Amino acid sequence: MSEINVDHQSTTGNIWASEVARGHFKTSLKIKNMLFSEKSDFQLVQVVDAVDLGKVLINDGVFMLSERDEFIYHDMITHLPMFEHGAVEKVLIIGGGDGGTAREVLRHPSVKKCVMVEIDEAVIRACRQHIPQTARCLDGSDARLELIVGDGVAYMQNATDTFDLIIVDSTDPIGPAKPLFGVSFYQDVRRRLRDNGVVVAQGESPFVFPDTQKALYDVIKEVFKGVQAYNYSNWIYPSGLFSFMIAQKDGGLMGAPANLRERITQSGLSFDYYNEDIHRAAFALPNFQRKKLGLA
Amino acid sequence: MSEINVDHQSTTGNIWASEVARGHFKTSLKIKNMLFSEKSDFQLVQVVDAVDLGKVLINDGVFMLSERDEFIYHDMITHLPMFEHGAVEKVLIIGGGDGGTAREVLRHPSVKKCVMVEIDEAVIRACRQHIPQTARCLDGSDARLELIVGDGVAYMQNATDTFDLIIVDSTDPIGPAKPLFGVSFYQDVRRRLRDNGVVVAQGESPFVFPDTQKALYDVIKEVFKGVQAYNYSNWIYPSGLFSFMIAQKDGGLMGAPANLRERITQSGLSFDYYNEDIHRAAFALPNFQRKKLGLA
Repeated sequence: MSEINVDHQSTTGNIWASEVARGHFKTSLKIKNMLFSEKSDFQLVQVVDAVDLGKVLINDGVFMLSERDEFIYHDMITHLPMFEHGAVEKVLIIGGGDGGTAREVLRHPSVKKCVMVEIDEAVIRACRQHIPQTARCLDGSDARLELIVGDGVAYMQNATDTFDLIIVDSTDPIGPAKPLFGVSFYQDVRRRLRDNGVVVAQGESPFVFPDTQKALYDVIKEVFKGVQAYNYSNWIYPSGLFSFMIAQKDGGLMGAPANLRERITQSGLSFDYYNEDIHRAAFALPNFQRKKLGLA
Repeated sequence: MSEINVDHQSTTGNIWASEVARGHFKTSLKIKNMLFSEKSDFQLVQVVDAVDLGKVLINDGVFMLSERDEFIYHDMITHLPMFEHGAVEKVLIIGGGDGGTAREVLRHPSVKKCVMVEIDEAVIRACRQHIPQTARCLDGSDARLELIVGDGVAYMQNATDTFDLIIVDSTDPIGPAKPLFGVSFYQDVRRRLRDNGVVVAQGESPFVFPDTQKALYDVIKEVFKGVQAYNYSNWIYPSGLFSFMIAQKDGGLMGAPANLRERITQSGLSFDYYNEDIHRAAFALPNFQRKKLGLA
């Protein structure tokens, strides 16, 4: 248990798993059990069972997901870009080892093929064993999913396939995800997009990591002129407010197509977070964030 | 220091001020100093100096505001209803002892009179002494502000004045704020609203306090048929996602008037969080919240 950031609250004896952001802002979950803890080749991978939030995946001390709120992240990284594009057949996921993004992609009947490249097999193994809610879809039962355990950066350099949607489902720019925050990676992404293709990437928090967010925004902007940030609210991530970055190969601005409602209805899908209003609203950025990104 | 929820992190010796929500979700700020701690007639009032977040007001162990992110709460409780109404001259604030809401109300040139009724003089005193960023406006220099130290519920029962905008800037429904979450209070609010008058109230978190949010929504709905929730993202509140409730005396639905942009421009004001897009987007509620409130 010493590997996790545990506070021993002297008055109660409770055990808390904590993420410390910026060195001074701490989010803690009361936990019942440590279920998995392994130093992989890339990071410390841990799964805890938290009171009321269910199983929680923690990589290098950073909360990745909880069973209670993972639907939000996975709705917003998947369905918003899917419906922006409108006719996605082929998807590439870089990262996403917990399986949640693949699960949501595969719900779309239009999808014929989904390739997922996760660098750390320990993440896949931990989630398949302890968080089937997200990882069950990685069991090989859906023939449309091709799961590759390997380096996403190398895959992008060597790939010849092209995709309608590329999802960069990465952790923070520390550890194995660091090269995913660079210009050359996004140049490769652009080469692998089909016409009208869309890329979406985990974009950090405008509150807690504004410099990282700005750096990623600038990197993607160097390759995709029309990059935009959109926001969502997560429960367990520090400060709750996080963003994704989205861009289209042809540089056209996003922000909800006119027939969005029709696209959602025709998919036959229902969601716990995402809806048409949320889709449009996600592109509304507060002034402090607009200023930081150079938009105001 | 024993009065605050302090964790002594044995490995570092750091002192953290913590808010524990639902008994299992904890948000902690690393603090430099305790500046104020007093058990008033109503609650434990504390001000700490937190690393990077500045002064933080904590009532009964619940984070009220930090200097770093208070602009968000005060933008969204004030400017959104001000611009919804469009011609506010007379405002009543129930609670709001830190002064931040009064500060934002008084920025509007249309406002001729603002009455503020705060029950706990210790909150006012603590903030005037340690958080002038919000409380400076309570110094008597603006003749439009009438500051009453007293019970907001009793004030509403006895008041004869009427208002264009009533702002219920309350803490959680524990301690002194509890009666502010009842039907009879909102019946008094309704009586004190002018034609086209608007009421707005602190509406808790759809993640962390969904039952409290639903209860308040139902209470206001019993008196104001057209009540609506709108959301904003705060840094230090547990989970980050919180709501306000808004309703108009005549029951008309809100959601941004057609001439919103003109209203904002004509005010001559600028904001760090609020803008026209944020105003419209705030009314977009995620599906899980819509379901909880009985809207889906």
